[in-house]
Amino acid sequence: MPLSPATPIILVVEPFGGSTRRHNPSLPLVYWDDAAVTRGDGVFETLLLRDGRAANLERHLRRFRASVKLMGLPEQAAEHWRKATAEAVEAWYEKNDSDARCVWTLTRGRESTGIPTAWITVREVGETSVRQRREGVSVMTTERGYSINEHLPGVHRVTSGTPTEKKLKDPAPWLTVGAKTLNYAANMAALRYARNHGFEDIIYVDDDRVLEGATSTVVIVKKGRRLRTPVPGGDILPGTTQAALFAYAEKHGWKCREKNLWIDDLFSAESVWLVSSVRVAARVTRINDVKLPAPANVAEVEELITRALAE
Amino acid sequence: MPLSPATPIILVVEPFGGSTRRHNPSLPLVYWDDAAVTRGDGVFETLLLRDGRAANLERHLRRFRASVKLMGLPEQAAEHWRKATAEAVEAWYEKNDSDARCVWTLTRGRESTGIPTAWITVREVGETSVRQRREGVSVMTTERGYSINEHLPGVHRVTSGTPTEKKLKDPAPWLTVGAKTLNYAANMAALRYARNHGFEDIIYVDDDRVLEGATSTVVIVKKGRRLRTPVPGGDILPGTTQAALFAYAEKHGWKCREKNLWIDDLFSAESVWLVSSVRVAARVTRINDVKLPAPANVAEVEELITRALAE
Repeated sequence: MPLSPATPIILVVEPFGGSTRRHNPSLPLVYWDDAAVTRGDGVFETLLLRDGRAANLERHLRRFRASVKLMGLPEQAAEHWRKATAEAVEAWYEKNDSDARCVWTLTRGRESTGIPTAWITVREVGETSVRQRREGVSVMTTERGYSINEHLPGVHRVTSGTPTEKKLKDPAPWLTVGAKTLNYAANMAALRYARNHGFEDIIYVDDDRVLEGATSTVVIVKKGRRLRTPVPGGDILPGTTQAALFAYAEKHGWKCREKNLWIDDLFSAESVWLVSSVRVAARVTRINDVKLPAPANVAEVEELITRALAE
Repeated sequence: MPLSPATPIILVVEPFGGSTRRHNPSLPLVYWDDAAVTRGDGVFETLLLRDGRAANLERHLRRFRASVKLMGLPEQAAEHWRKATAEAVEAWYEKNDSDARCVWTLTRGRESTGIPTAWITVREVGETSVRQRREGVSVMTTERGYSINEHLPGVHRVTSGTPTEKKLKDPAPWLTVGAKTLNYAANMAALRYARNHGFEDIIYVDDDRVLEGATSTVVIVKKGRRLRTPVPGGDILPGTTQAALFAYAEKHGWKCREKNLWIDDLFSAESVWLVSSVRVAARVTRINDVKLPAPANVAEVEELITRALAE
């Protein structure tokens, strides 16, 4: 591993043809009139690069393309992003042998051209993520401050992928709740708040119902090799890492279910995890004032997730 | 007025000392790891430049500094932004004599430096705004898709400025609802939806209660020279142009009040307006399927708003 920080890789992607060009990371990239900068109007995905490949690539690709569709951005060919990501992976491993954080971004583009902007970045996994994988995180529970109106037509269908009887002709304005947009200011504010209060992360709750982390999915481990996660959809973004974990664990003797979770379920679980693409899995060591001691099978759970991402 | 599009002015502002430098608008401005681009983590204000000055400057400055505080960004000295704006105004009117759209942006800055990024842009007022000033807009009403939990401590106080008995020590994570952040993806999606359905703008409603436009404040004119606007706070951003209008109109024989408005109030009003800094005032000519005929005093209302901004 290099001692000085690794140089990030920036790959600009042409949003229609998929051709790429390297961009110097020490120069500005985005124009002043790009919708990403003026309105946060774009979508992204964050992937882990590990062992010379992008982990969980197909699930990220599916969610990315679903976000693109929800936001009414031009359809993105899967093969273009696979190819561009492979180039970015190759560029990273030419100079490094460590894990890396890869981000795909697609914005509505410059006001003056109307052409979407797309790029891929690759950089080191932050020290904080590495430490939290090892040591876990203390979390506080907090309300989001708003409630998604689940009764609106289409919200459940679009965010969870479940078909409804009534077919909607057009995506409705409120349906950006199911897309992974650049609008993360509130989540970032919640994290700052938690850090100012001696916590490292948060779990959003709606009264007693458990939603998700600021940038992660909540997974609990229950006695008898059982995994549970809150049902995605509405104000819970479907988690790609959780999905990979559940798919792998099911094949290896675990019982996995999406199920409404309540705060009490967190306290009665064997262990509670925040699962996301780059930090991968951080065990929750404290919730508000309650310590959660490490169970005997911590290493087994960690290995399960690691193997799921190597599939 | 020049026949070719006017060259935009970009002024980068040093966020602590306030010094400025011109930036070439044909070159990228923002780095790939800026929080504006990765998380929509920043705040902005849009001002009208008219008759050689920034209209309604002090109200924008107040809201900007309130947004900065809510988001936990470094305090911005009013005199730095006054001075930088004056430079931008001067640069614009050296080459142009028309109205212009001026935007202030402050972001949490690059991940690699931790130093906020700030800049001012000035460009032409779009043709659409100019046409809608003249011809008005057809609007559809739509739900936001989420509800702000008004019962949470502090929400009302922070978004409306009204003091509460219980003093909160720290800003809470949910309080970004009162800040004018870059997280406008949902509003932009709602506008696209409206345009795909033959409308030019939207009015957000919560059941029958009127909230605001996508990027504007709703103002209605009632018989007897009365102006009404929904009470700001919670999910209604306080409007700077509406505030200027009310302050001026009160001094000139109008009765102005912030008051809950219902959809029926729109239909029974003399006229309904969407008020914002650059488009200034667009009369609503249709709401969903109902046409709103122009009242006799349209010109009087327009002049009232124009004069308010010249104060």
